[in-house]
Amino acid sequence: MPIITLTTDFGSADHFVGTVKGVILGIAPRADIVDITHQIAPYNVSEAAFTIAQAWPYFPKGTIHVVVVDPGVGSARRAILAQAGGQYFVAPDNGVLSMICETPRHQVRIIANPKLMRKEVSRTFHGRDVFAPAAAHLAAGVAPARFGKKIEDYVRASFVKPHKSSRGYWIGVVLKADHFGNLITNFHIDNFPEIRTSPIELRAAGERIHRLALTYSETEIGEVFAIVGSSGYIEIAANQASAAKTLGCGAGAEVALEISR
Amino acid sequence: MPIITLTTDFGSADHFVGTVKGVILGIAPRADIVDITHQIAPYNVSEAAFTIAQAWPYFPKGTIHVVVVDPGVGSARRAILAQAGGQYFVAPDNGVLSMICETPRHQVRIIANPKLMRKEVSRTFHGRDVFAPAAAHLAAGVAPARFGKKIEDYVRASFVKPHKSSRGYWIGVVLKADHFGNLITNFHIDNFPEIRTSPIELRAAGERIHRLALTYSETEIGEVFAIVGSSGYIEIAANQASAAKTLGCGAGAEVALEISR
Amino acid sequence: MPIITLTTDFGSADHFVGTVKGVILGIAPRADIVDITHQIAPYNVSEAAFTIAQAWPYFPKGTIHVVVVDPGVGSARRAILAQAGGQYFVAPDNGVLSMICETPRHQVRIIANPKLMRKEVSRTFHGRDVFAPAAAHLAAGVAPARFGKKIEDYVRASFVKPHKSSRGYWIGVVLKADHFGNLITNFHIDNFPEIRTSPIELRAAGERIHRLALTYSETEIGEVFAIVGSSGYIEIAANQASAAKTLGCGAGAEVALEISR
Repeated sequence: MPIITLTTDFGSADHFVGTVKGVILGIAPRADIVDITHQIAPYNVSEAAFTIAQAWPYFPKGTIHVVVVDPGVGSARRAILAQAGGQYFVAPDNGVLSMICETPRHQVRIIANPKLMRKEVSRTFHGRDVFAPAAAHLAAGVAPARFGKKIEDYVRASFVKPHKSSRGYWIGVVLKADHFGNLITNFHIDNFPEIRTSPIELRAAGERIHRLALTYSETEIGEVFAIVGSSGYIEIAANQASAAKTLGCGAGAEVALEISR
Repeated sequence: MPIITLTTDFGSADHFVGTVKGVILGIAPRADIVDITHQIAPYNVSEAAFTIAQAWPYFPKGTIHVVVVDPGVGSARRAILAQAGGQYFVAPDNGVLSMICETPRHQVRIIANPKLMRKEVSRTFHGRDVFAPAAAHLAAGVAPARFGKKIEDYVRASFVKPHKSSRGYWIGVVLKADHFGNLITNFHIDNFPEIRTSPIELRAAGERIHRLALTYSETEIGEVFAIVGSSGYIEIAANQASAAKTLGCGAGAEVALEISR
Repeated sequence: MPIITLTTDFGSADHFVGTVKGVILGIAPRADIVDITHQIAPYNVSEAAFTIAQAWPYFPKGTIHVVVVDPGVGSARRAILAQAGGQYFVAPDNGVLSMICETPRHQVRIIANPKLMRKEVSRTFHGRDVFAPAAAHLAAGVAPARFGKKIEDYVRASFVKPHKSSRGYWIGVVLKADHFGNLITNFHIDNFPEIRTSPIELRAAGERIHRLALTYSETEIGEVFAIVGSSGYIEIAANQASAAKTLGCGAGAEVALEISR
């Protein structure tokens, strides 16, 4: 039973998600459809890129991920099918697969074969007419090569990575404020392993944070602190409270990291 | 594996939806349950009618759709099982299947057989006690005729269709404001094909719209325009913004359409 | 196909729920995953305890319920596997299974076998690293005894039950305000059967309610009344309106019940 996951900005209040699932099940009746989320902020390509990048490594080989955040729907932007890490990704070519395409030995094809789309392709709903059929045909066993030719010039979005300031500290950004109000930064523990052993100062929204906690339970209720999140990124968190509300900032906010030697 | 879809006003924060699914899986363990939405505005029969009417055509033959928006639960209103387009619909008899019952060669039965309900039927939760078991028994192969006798006098709701004003223009209504803030009107392109070639003026909330766009990408960011949505209805949309917020109106708002010859 | 249900405070906007499902399907590809809700108020153990207690009786024998509301994640709190009523429950040992553990002949074990967890257990996301694998291994046929030894000293939370005041009336509490704004109290009809035949006064937020309705349809639109909800608890409801908003109160509010003889 192939798994097809969905990551969209469709919300949950309309018929859009159900319609996409109907199309998939009409083509691949045995597909097991899993929602990652439909609450990506409308048109926010980088949030979707981050979200699918966090989720996919936990799925079994052969899983097909559909990512539809598509401000350019109806324009000339291409549809793509990427293969990476033994899994498949179907999305508009707008950078939403940027983090996936950092995986070694990935391949990207365009989705161009009209036989693998719905007969009538609307100008506004490619989730239903292009991406759902592509994922379902893949799940039903159609070979990737049948969708279209390999390309190298897919869109690579420049989601900000930390860079060094002239004064020697690092400047990063909040990628996302999650459901608990944790501020997920783009500082990854693999790139900054020394923070485990050296004193740090993390600065965001005028707040200076010195504590890198190992667990929430070692902190005071309401305390704001840094912690390495489950995805490996440093997060600014507050014990049983929302760091986003406490600091008054969210996605896009600048974060500075200074490490004492 | 029969598909059962759910469209309700239960929301997603309570145990209601999970309970309904438990009942279904207890009777039909192999059913594949698909959520259309549980975010219908509480008691809003017309919104549910519109939503299921948009979704069902994309599901395979034999799909069973459960629609539970039921302000009259516990009263004498009947439960019905409709067949249309090769699919099944289970719902209270309150007009929520009105758009389905416009399909040619549909049949409607009452659900009256207590053996196909839970043993104890509560007065407040027929989603769990009547509609979930009905759908599950259908999925498990029980013939429609066993549920109850055919009826003709099911409730036909008079959801407003556009009518002509004495001055020669058309008066319609906003059926729904969707997740993106698009205002879906009840003007269907099949009934107004001439708008593709003749100049139009669409009036809503004091705004006059003359542009009928083919794609979002041909419009300016923030621009308010008309577009034929993926369901064939004319929508008032705003490029990367919410038309509902920009115009300050939503479901139920009047929309006038004037077509120049 | 074993059923695994999920009840969490993860929300639906992040990658957390999708990640948990990916881990489950990697271990137990045939598991049928059902969301109860992911909208439990963050860290609200009693709301989660109430929610799963309402849902589980409607699921077939052998169902595995995962409940993750876990303010103590990363601390020394244990993970537990409970068996009750022919079903399984996987959760942190923080009282969230308190209502389940009132079922006769239940058993509780600790989850301590690292071979049945992910290789690396993070300090912040045991839903992914401990509870999802435990549920999936159970679904795949691993015997409960392999998870860890039986315990008796699991956490029993003292969720408030009604007690009698010195003046002879009962004092209870609102357990939850549901999606419709109904205020679900902890007065269960099984413990107060006499309210069916004797006059009552229910007092909450300064309002005095005397009507115990059998159905919504016998009340006036907007009227506030008491009704025995589908779960057997007395609820304060308002016809086509939110009792929570009308009375201006919610979970935790005191409710007094006076029964005339």
